[in-house]
Parts: sequence; C-alpha cells; structure tokens
Amino acid sequence: MSNNSGADLYNKAKKIIPGGTQLLSKRPELFLPDNWPSYYDRASGCEIWDLDNNKYYDFSHMGVGACVLGYADEEVNSRVKAAVDKGTMTTLNCHEEVALARKMLELHPWADMARFARTGGEICAIAVRIARAATKKDKVAFCGYHGWHDWYISANLSDKNSLDGQLLPGLDPLGVPRNLGGTLFPFNYGCIDELEEIVNDNVGEIGVIMMEPTRNEQDISFLKAVRAVANRINAVLIFDEVTSGFRVNNGGIHLTLGVAPDLAVFGKALGNGFPISAVIGKSSIMDAAQRSFISSTFWTERIGFVAALATIEKMQRCPVVKRLVSCGKLINEGWSRIAQEVSLDISISGIEPLTHISFNYPNALSIQTLFTQEMLKRGFLAGSVVYTTYAYTDEIINDYIRNAKEVFILIKEGLNNNRIEKMLEGPIKHSGFKRLN
Amino acid sequence: MSNNSGADLYNKAKKIIPGGTQLLSKRPELFLPDNWPSYYDRASGCEIWDLDNNKYYDFSHMGVGACVLGYADEEVNSRVKAAVDKGTMTTLNCHEEVALARKMLELHPWADMARFARTGGEICAIAVRIARAATKKDKVAFCGYHGWHDWYISANLSDKNSLDGQLLPGLDPLGVPRNLGGTLFPFNYGCIDELEEIVNDNVGEIGVIMMEPTRNEQDISFLKAVRAVANRINAVLIFDEVTSGFRVNNGGIHLTLGVAPDLAVFGKALGNGFPISAVIGKSSIMDAAQRSFISSTFWTERIGFVAALATIEKMQRCPVVKRLVSCGKLINEGWSRIAQEVSLDISISGIEPLTHISFNYPNALSIQTLFTQEMLKRGFLAGSVVYTTYAYTDEIINDYIRNAKEVFILIKEGLNNNRIEKMLEGPIKHSGFKRLN
Repeated sequence: MSNNSGADLYNKAKKIIPGGTQLLSKRPELFLPDNWPSYYDRASGCEIWDLDNNKYYDFSHMGVGACVLGYADEEVNSRVKAAVDKGTMTTLNCHEEVALARKMLELHPWADMARFARTGGEICAIAVRIARAATKKDKVAFCGYHGWHDWYISANLSDKNSLDGQLLPGLDPLGVPRNLGGTLFPFNYGCIDELEEIVNDNVGEIGVIMMEPTRNEQDISFLKAVRAVANRINAVLIFDEVTSGFRVNNGGIHLTLGVAPDLAVFGKALGNGFPISAVIGKSSIMDAAQRSFISSTFWTERIGFVAALATIEKMQRCPVVKRLVSCGKLINEGWSRIAQEVSLDISISGIEPLTHISFNYPNALSIQTLFTQEMLKRGFLAGSVVYTTYAYTDEIINDYIRNAKEVFILIKEGLNNNRIEKMLEGPIKHSGFKRLN
Repeated sequence: MSNNSGADLYNKAKKIIPGGTQLLSKRPELFLPDNWPSYYDRASGCEIWDLDNNKYYDFSHMGVGACVLGYADEEVNSRVKAAVDKGTMTTLNCHEEVALARKMLELHPWADMARFARTGGEICAIAVRIARAATKKDKVAFCGYHGWHDWYISANLSDKNSLDGQLLPGLDPLGVPRNLGGTLFPFNYGCIDELEEIVNDNVGEIGVIMMEPTRNEQDISFLKAVRAVANRINAVLIFDEVTSGFRVNNGGIHLTLGVAPDLAVFGKALGNGFPISAVIGKSSIMDAAQRSFISSTFWTERIGFVAALATIEKMQRCPVVKRLVSCGKLINEGWSRIAQEVSLDISISGIEPLTHISFNYPNALSIQTLFTQEMLKRGFLAGSVVYTTYAYTDEIINDYIRNAKEVFILIKEGLNNNRIEKMLEGPIKHSGFKRLN
C-alpha cells in the first residue's frame, strides 16, 4: 500500500503483536503514523538504515536513550562478540558480574552492594521489593515514571489520573490486582508539600520514597528536602536513574546534584543498548534481598555485564559525558537561533543530553508531526526529544540544524496560512498510551 | 584460602552482591559449598572451563536448561554476532521480532498473537496481567513455579507454606505487599479435587489458572480435567512452558500432550541461552494487552529475537529434540544399570530431557553432595538434575556413566561404613532458598 516497507511490515505486525511493538516509545504512531520507517536493517554511529535502505541521522531517541556511545560501537561490540565466542550462558556464573558490581560501587562510593537484572521495569520492581522488605512497610510515595509493573501501575487504581503528571498520561490499570489500590501515592517534582501531605495522611506507613532525581526540571533544594523527609520518617529513598544515569557524569546524576539516595537503579545507557540494569545501595537495606526471593535465569547471562563494563570503561577513558552535554548545548543553541530567525515560538527543557523542544501553539501536536514528517524527507529521524550521542559530530549537528531551519520556515508558513494540518501526509501523532486500531 | 579461584571470587562476591548471584540455581551452595568452581571462563558444546582452566563436562544444568543446542553454538552465535555488527538497539524496531512472532504462531496453530520480554519471570507476570485484564478477575489458581514477582510470591502471604509443594520450599514473601494476600491459590499436580475446591471456595472469582503442564510428572487426563474446569468457569488457562518448552518437540510440550491452553509462556531454551521470553495466545485474550500498559526498552533489543529464530530453525532442521530425549534415555538407563550393579537404591523422575536422580536414603542430601564432589574430581559438573543437550555424544554420556559408577561404588562403601558425611570435604549442599552467611 505505502512505498515504505517498514510501514507495511508494521501493519502486519499489529495483527499478531498486540500493541504492535514491545515498547510504547517505539510505536510509529508516536512519531509519524503511517509513514515512519518503523524498522531498521542496520545502524552505526548516529546513522540508521531502514528496510528500503534509506539512510537517516538519528536526532530522536538513539535507542530510547540507550546508545550513548553510538550505534554498534566497535569497542563495546568487539568485547560482546568475544564473550559470545566464549559462551554467554552456562551452569556456572560469569565473573564479569562481580567486576561490574565492583565498578558500580567504585563509581558510587556511598553504595555497598549491587544486584542486576535485564530491564528497567524489573530493576525498579526489585528495588521496591528490597526497600519494602527492609522497612516492612508497603506504602510508596513516588515521583516520576518507573515502569509497567503492578506495584507502579497500581497507582491508578484509586485515582485513574494518578500517573497523568508522571510522564505518561492515560495508563489504564487493567489487569493490576485491585487489592493493590491505596499503596502508591504520587507527588509532583518540586512540590515538597505534596510529599509532606502524603506522609501526614499515612503516618508511620510510608516505607519507600521513589523518584527520578531529574526529568524536565532539576531542583537540588527539592531533592535535599525529600532526603530530609526520608531520613525523618525512616523511609528508603530510591533514585530511579534508568533515564538520567550516565549522561552528565559516569554514574548517577545524583553524584552531580550532591544528594545521595539509599538505593539507586540504572538501565538504558549502562550497556550502550545491550540489556542490563542495576540496583545499588547501602548494605543495611540491600541485605534484605537475602531474605526475599529475587531470582531469574537470564539475569546471569554474560553479555549485559560485558557490555556495561566496556561502556563504562570507554566513558572513563574518553570525554563521552562532556560531549553528550556539549552536543545538547549545540542543539539547544541551534534550535533557539533558528526559531528566532524564523520567529517561531518554541520552548526548550530537560538536561542537555536529553533535550526537549516544544512548539508553543494550540496545535502543537500537528506541528510536531509536520516537523517529523519533513525532517524524515531530509534524512533525519527527529521528534520532540533528542537523546544525544558521542557519535554526533559538530558537522552532523550543524547539518541537522540547517535542515531544521528549512522545516521551521515551512512550519511558520503553515501557521501563517493556517495550513499545518493540510500539510500533513498522514494522521497526527499520538501523545501517549492509547489503544491501536 | 582455597585452591579454587572461583570459590575465592564467590566469597568476595557475597560481600557486594546480596545472595552472591542473580539466580538461586547458580549458587555454589546448591551444588558443593566451598568447592564448586562457581565461575567460568569459557564454554563450548558440553564443555566448560573454570577460572583455573580446569575443563569439565556439564552433566548438570547446561545453563539452567537454556543451552539445548550446546554452549556457544556456532550457528546461533554467528547470527548473533552478525546482528551485533548491524546494531542491536536503535530508535526503530528490529524486523526479527515480527519474524519470531510468525514462527511461534506457526509452531502453535491454536495461538493468534505473541508478545516478548527478556526473562521468564517477566513473561509470567505479563501473561497474568493480560489474563487478569481479559477476565477482569484478580484471583489465580496455580500449580508449579512461576518466578520471583509479587503476584506469585504473594501466595505465601496467607500461608507461608503455600509454595512449598511447588518446586522451591522456604520462600519468604518479605517485601511483597500484604494486600496481595488471598489472591493466589495453589493446587498440586494431579489433584483436580484441589482445583475444584479452590473454584468452589471462590465462586465466580477465579479468572486465571496457571500451571506447568509437566514438571516431574505428566498426566494428560489431569490436564484435560483442568482444561474442562477453565472452560466451565470461563478462566484463562495459562501453560508455563518456560522450563518444559522446546525439549520434547519444537514448541510447547502441550503440543505433544494434546491439551491447548489459552496462553502459553516460553523462555530458557527458546534462544539457546540468549535472553528472550515469549507469551503466545488466542487473540480474544491477547488483545487485552492493548488496554494495559506493558512496555519495556530492552524487550526490543535485537539479539533475543535473532537467537530465538536461529535456535528454532536449527531445531527444525536437525533432530535436536529427538536427541535431547534419547540422551535422557541413555542417562536414565546408565543410572539404573550402575545402581543395580552397585546395589544402590535410586529413583529417576522427570521427562527425559530434564531427568532427576534421587538417592533413597535418609541422608540423601549428603550423598548428593558427595556425588557432586567426586564427579567434579573426575571432570564432570554433576548434580541431581541433568538438562540434556544436543552437544552430548554417546561416548561422552558413556564416559559420564563410567565415572558415575566409580562414585556410586564410593557412595555404597560410605553407606556401608556409615562414613558419607566424613567423606565430604566441605559442607552439605543447600536444598532450597535460604539466607547465606
């Protein structure tokens, strides 16, 4: 039907894979419904080839934030392939898991122990299990996005909009046991009063405070206030660094912000795209993992540990995070400059290595879709978010900005003529979780 | 302290990794406390080298049942490495996930849709989420082992021994929200009356029946009776094939047993040791996954899909499962023969590709430990369970049996002289989950 093999394959996929993909953020509908390349054949650095052999520069998610060093990084890949040759799963353990534990503790001197899993959702669930086991309290106050598991989605059981302020609106808690209602309490970033209110409403019952130390904002005094509440009520403070970790420094962003949690969880960037996630923490709390059954076959597989060690070692040897930040600055400066030149009203938010652009118009979603559509024609995967990568060169960033300016001019004309929606060659993109047709 | 680098490393690991490993079944304490090699350097076929370059034949778990084709299978590995070269994680999806969905549905004609994750625990939790979402009922009747997640371990909240009959005794539900108590109901394999009682005690409330179609026993009429109960009460029947799948045929063992579930979950053998797990099912139920948020970054990573496709294709082209079964028969015949020759009282149970030996004596655990200790000296990783592999040759199996006979003779002498425990060079192995020192 379309001239796009990926879109054709996706239409077939939706018939046999409910939701089309395994990850909401990889749904074509969240970028450019009907016309997104959807699938790739190969990728290298910041370049990616679709099923029709079209090449794009990725100025969007770079592997949902996982590929900080770039796609198919040679150094990480060569160590992964050597591990594959030597066997990645056996009856015995791989020694690299101990080496990775040591490395994570060396990077985070406040932590004494580490456990590992494969996915971000799992590691959040493990951290909450450990914290609940340590405090023997079930109630959790939280701020941010922490995955698909029952413990988290249950927040929407008592109030179906509980999670709406936390990254993803519209999450239906269907299939989550109703008994879990009343165990999760959301507070918004920067609003210490909301946390205090939760604590006052549940005196002696909040055992865990879980939060992303930064998402769009960064507020050190807020983090310190949360830390003080946790200390006062004897709750375990967990920082979810799945998204923020290994972007502004070689470890959790909390090292830069100067506030230490009791537990911290990592994923995404940790293994440059190979599945690995980690929880680290103080031994007084982590020890509770000994008394709760937390065990899975594939957590022991070798690639994740090898990839994480290779990634961290490259990040320690090369100025990776410095570059992730400076690339974000370059992009932000570029966006600001061309928006001014074209008189387009935009906002920029987020940390530099994970920067967001918003178009300040009532039909922002249509404009965003048009931006993605026109950037794609120019050879760029582009959305409202850029996760930066060490694989960007200044030249490639400048090329992206040059092309973005052409598209900003188009958008400005469309706005002036009230023609944005007419310029779209397919449906408007989705803004969150919804049922697909 | 010891002459074993792996045991030394493990002692260090226990200080920084609570529980020492990521998987209970890889704890040295479950094989040979203090003297197990614990870690490997490399593995190939059914051979494995420890950190001191000692070589062993693996007649134990073969990667906790994952490596059906053998360690570092060249065919699977070459496809995995090609995928690594082309990039395994990007912003776009990998087309192999659609191919694997098609392959799984082709192998299981009763199923219409598939979703994937990385670990067995995750995929069980996903299946239960989907089933609960489809039936809008939270209560689950179950039989067997289904992972570490809250939904399952909660079975021990109401009765701390609920799970004792289900593979692993002694699981403490510490850290599992107490509200989940009363949602899980265990029944034992072969006991349809127990399931009927659960149904009668919870009229209209059991939405899900989850079970391993076989573990140590195989009872087709029981499975048919469970299927009939599920139909009668409109419950979703889930077969957990994480352990049983891809051992006696190219798919779920239920295909051989002739009873189809509504959902089935797979892991372990599916990718020959590379992390991948799958849930397949009827579209009427799987469609509920569209209305519940089930999403994780690393579920989209390419290696799992590539490895599963390569594994299944090799299993379709070569007589793998036939060989897994015949190897199990050879081992069973060998065990029986040498036990008779030595007058040792043993029992054998399980399906051939996953065969168990028990020593019928009061100090069985000591005897088992002695068996492992003495087989290790002879160059074999050996315990009470053998997961067979396509990498075994008749010659290697005969060599194993020849060595096992020497050890059976030792055991017999030890029993005759009441010296089994004195012959042990370290502590008796653990029989299940317990806190480590």
